[in-house]
Amino acid sequence: MPTDKHTSKKSYAGSKVLQIDGDSLQQGVSVDCVIFGFHDGNMKVLLNKFSYYTQWMLPGGFVGKEESIDTAADRVLKNRTGLENVYLKQFHTFGDWKRTKLPENEEMLILRGFENPKDREKHWLMQRFVSIGYYALVEYSKVKIETNEDEEIAWFDLKDIPELYSDHNEILEKALYTLRIRLSISPIGYELLPEKFTMTEMRIIFETILQKKLDRRNFQRKMLAAGLVYKLDEVSKKFGVKDSALFSFDKEKYEKALTDGFLILE
Amino acid sequence: MPTDKHTSKKSYAGSKVLQIDGDSLQQGVSVDCVIFGFHDGNMKVLLNKFSYYTQWMLPGGFVGKEESIDTAADRVLKNRTGLENVYLKQFHTFGDWKRTKLPENEEMLILRGFENPKDREKHWLMQRFVSIGYYALVEYSKVKIETNEDEEIAWFDLKDIPELYSDHNEILEKALYTLRIRLSISPIGYELLPEKFTMTEMRIIFETILQKKLDRRNFQRKMLAAGLVYKLDEVSKKFGVKDSALFSFDKEKYEKALTDGFLILE
Repeated sequence: MPTDKHTSKKSYAGSKVLQIDGDSLQQGVSVDCVIFGFHDGNMKVLLNKFSYYTQWMLPGGFVGKEESIDTAADRVLKNRTGLENVYLKQFHTFGDWKRTKLPENEEMLILRGFENPKDREKHWLMQRFVSIGYYALVEYSKVKIETNEDEEIAWFDLKDIPELYSDHNEILEKALYTLRIRLSISPIGYELLPEKFTMTEMRIIFETILQKKLDRRNFQRKMLAAGLVYKLDEVSKKFGVKDSALFSFDKEKYEKALTDGFLILE
Repeated sequence: MPTDKHTSKKSYAGSKVLQIDGDSLQQGVSVDCVIFGFHDGNMKVLLNKFSYYTQWMLPGGFVGKEESIDTAADRVLKNRTGLENVYLKQFHTFGDWKRTKLPENEEMLILRGFENPKDREKHWLMQRFVSIGYYALVEYSKVKIETNEDEEIAWFDLKDIPELYSDHNEILEKALYTLRIRLSISPIGYELLPEKFTMTEMRIIFETILQKKLDRRNFQRKMLAAGLVYKLDEVSKKFGVKDSALFSFDKEKYEKALTDGFLILE
């Protein structure tokens, strides 16, 4: 169940995605984006659902014949979130031959105008898609969800993801696995957190990705020792009754750690 | 220039790859394999070249409509090397829209039977391919190169790679980059080395991937301290006049390091 929902009538990404213009599209290839955000102490993922369609899915799209796959992923992200120039990275391509042969696909094809089974048989939309997975780390407050009457878009808590369309749960799992590997060699957080944040917010991001509890004091000590963050002269009352210290990233040291490597010692 | 060459008349991979049967293939998608081996103190890559064609390329192939992309990569590897069940891993998908619009492509298409420019215009072979890159780490001595009159296959020294077809140099670079990232979190070597090897051979693999010289004594000390390898009661006369100690991997500890992580501290 979505934890919050934005509905706007502005026509944007949704219907464009569903309108199939076979001549301008690269057949058999799509991109799917796993868009991570952080809000209210939870890691979140952006999902969409087309009207009359039963399952939520990762925001995705087709690739134009004269469009690079990275550009297609940028376009999908911009159409759904309004964001440009954010951290968006290809992580894995999904091409099991059975991946789009699931029963749900039928319903999707009717939506796309293939009511008559005879029209479908040899059409590329009826065949397996190879989908290139991208993940994005975005600052939640900067996301302006764009939607239309064909499509619902909402943030879901990572711990509360429903059964998704096709192999999209597997794509999401693989994106998280990629983040875990990445966190073992370089820091994560800058793209997800606002300018000022509490150490608890940063620790929750690490815990969610690593899928284990981290010691609160050790975590703060290590982050400060690594010089990645510095303490501000301000406090936040956001979390409970006690004032929480606010921190900010040292951009220069953070960039250096991205290049040189950074080890999470547990 | 190839450092060694095997020529066999047995018809196998080559001509099968060139014969295009559009109905059974997934249009617009291919796999390319970067196959790494180690021999005579050098990291090597397997390349192939079709007859009448000017440039060497990474061994690749099309994907069947009812074939998973991983299975297609396995098939390409087996066809060229005779190997099955080896370390083969997807690392990146290449989909720049200009990638197969290079002048060389023309020549390839004539080989494929498109002499008449009119036949080509709308054919999927004339359009951009999205190619899924895989890398393999194989034991050189176990590779039985299969080739035919249409196709030459040879090992090239990694330091002596010519200008390859299309964006294949870029694909090779990205595979090496992936190995560098991998080496910073888990060991490499087991798949590439014979059962008994010298510490120099192992160090050269690390040096080639990390693209820097490593201190000979420190390297040996660290590998032994990590318990990844153990010293055998045998020596090798392969390298120069002095006997070199032989080592073997501790398979159990190696597997554990693959799972738990392993840090190259320099």
